[in-house]
Amino acid sequence: MRAVQITEFGGPEVVAVREVPEPRPGAGQILIDVARCGVNFADTLLRENAYIAAAALPLVPGGEVVGRTADGRRLAAMIENGGYAEKAVIPEDRAFPVPEEIDDVAAVALLAQGLTAWWLINHTGHVRPGESVVVHAAAGGVGSLAVQLAKMSGAGRVIATAGTPEKRELALSLGADAAVDPAAEDLTAALCEANNGEHVDVVLEMTGGRVTDQSIAALAPFGRLAFYGMASLVEPEKVSPRALQRRSATVSGFWLMNAFARPETLRKAYAELTAQVAAGELRVIHGGDYPMSEVRRVHEDLRGRRTTGKLVLDPSR
Amino acid sequence: MRAVQITEFGGPEVVAVREVPEPRPGAGQILIDVARCGVNFADTLLRENAYIAAAALPLVPGGEVVGRTADGRRLAAMIENGGYAEKAVIPEDRAFPVPEEIDDVAAVALLAQGLTAWWLINHTGHVRPGESVVVHAAAGGVGSLAVQLAKMSGAGRVIATAGTPEKRELALSLGADAAVDPAAEDLTAALCEANNGEHVDVVLEMTGGRVTDQSIAALAPFGRLAFYGMASLVEPEKVSPRALQRRSATVSGFWLMNAFARPETLRKAYAELTAQVAAGELRVIHGGDYPMSEVRRVHEDLRGRRTTGKLVLDPSR
Repeated sequence: MRAVQITEFGGPEVVAVREVPEPRPGAGQILIDVARCGVNFADTLLRENAYIAAAALPLVPGGEVVGRTADGRRLAAMIENGGYAEKAVIPEDRAFPVPEEIDDVAAVALLAQGLTAWWLINHTGHVRPGESVVVHAAAGGVGSLAVQLAKMSGAGRVIATAGTPEKRELALSLGADAAVDPAAEDLTAALCEANNGEHVDVVLEMTGGRVTDQSIAALAPFGRLAFYGMASLVEPEKVSPRALQRRSATVSGFWLMNAFARPETLRKAYAELTAQVAAGELRVIHGGDYPMSEVRRVHEDLRGRRTTGKLVLDPSR
Repeated sequence: MRAVQITEFGGPEVVAVREVPEPRPGAGQILIDVARCGVNFADTLLRENAYIAAAALPLVPGGEVVGRTADGRRLAAMIENGGYAEKAVIPEDRAFPVPEEIDDVAAVALLAQGLTAWWLINHTGHVRPGESVVVHAAAGGVGSLAVQLAKMSGAGRVIATAGTPEKRELALSLGADAAVDPAAEDLTAALCEANNGEHVDVVLEMTGGRVTDQSIAALAPFGRLAFYGMASLVEPEKVSPRALQRRSATVSGFWLMNAFARPETLRKAYAELTAQVAAGELRVIHGGDYPMSEVRRVHEDLRGRRTTGKLVLDPSR
């Protein structure tokens, strides 16, 4: 079968379509024909061996797939890797049924990104009615869903950040009450200003570096920052527990991999999210449906921050 | 009236009973005859000007009082200072009614310590049924209540730490499932061992230094550490958001002062706690009822870690 295989770590040039053996399902696994595979920022880090978890070569990347089993069941699943391929094996106990009303792009967008946004709003961030919520990278896959889920959960004011006027417009169209350029020299002040001069209750952060630092400084008493990624590859400052104590503030990490140990919660979340999309309450931003043969261009576009919305690969092309 | 007044910062020798003018209630304040005033570890830090908030001299310490108004209402309140005295003014909107069924020591113990324990279990720690909870300083004012509240909230396994065999016995008698010496060289391993070899879900920490560091290392995925004090006066290591992300772990600070902005929550919590004590479901450990004239000895005993349970001063003696 055709698949993208990496045999050495490196830049976009290391991803190439090759002929590789079809994977064989083991115990508790199902083989599916992949209709679409999601492409994530994390894939580009994995490609450089810069991801949170170390990788072993050779490797077929791709952690989110939607497709059909031989007997026609439509399933979506997150997998360790192997998704950039015509066929993939998925774990039976972590395969989610996909309603026919939603398209392949949404089915894939609601996996890593939808579940992350859901977890951040409902668990890590404990967003309560009336609270202010900052969503960084609000035009991104997680961010665009988090803005909408925050509003649906009753957040009082949702403040989006995004790096271009177009992305900020998109965030506002999704329901954000304000949109801020994260390049603001004093981002702390900019976030508070966007919150009517008040410090903020919840921050969903995936950038790292000064964006994390200045967001922590913007937290109100009992404020919580959820750190779920480091797209800039720059470590934020370490945090003093004593400084957190002064404001009764919280810093949490979130990595979806840890949630895999709670399949029932994920199953419930995925069912909720797909139902919201089917009902027209939650909008998935389509970022691009690329032929698998153009995988290199997708990686370049992602790292160049030129994309908005969910990117998928079509292994049939 | 008689009161303890500090005119310079320093050791226990700076606390002495003097004759000072009676305080006058301003708008929204009530004058009470103080029946008992709580003595807290934080008072000894304040005395040295080492507390989280800076202090101004001269100063009558004492932040928790129970007593009666001129018209006989029994009230308890947390105040900035002024409690080590025969009379004190308390803010009307933050005065809690005290049921007659509970004694003065319990009424005072349920203020800063009870409310802290309640907040840590119900808000900061978000303790969920079945989760493991480590309570450091479990024979202390907050700890002894937190052990019991954790069990009542359905925690699966409560692991107490305390520095002496007697204190560990006390923690076990309050319902802890295991008791650990926090001086263990590898405290991380000791906590996991006490949790049947598993990492732990929640840690309530008020010691600082290596106890904080090694407790964070003991957190399970989605584990939360609530840092609410630094009795050792040693700063813990700063925490890397990225390290938290790997385990989806959380570090929160908690300082009761921040909760004063939520008087309705505190009022509800105090009513709950006093009802539990009145019903015999929650036990307050009496640590010593000292004449105000012996205030110096109380401070020495507290800092020398020779006390267990709630310490109060009786201004009439």
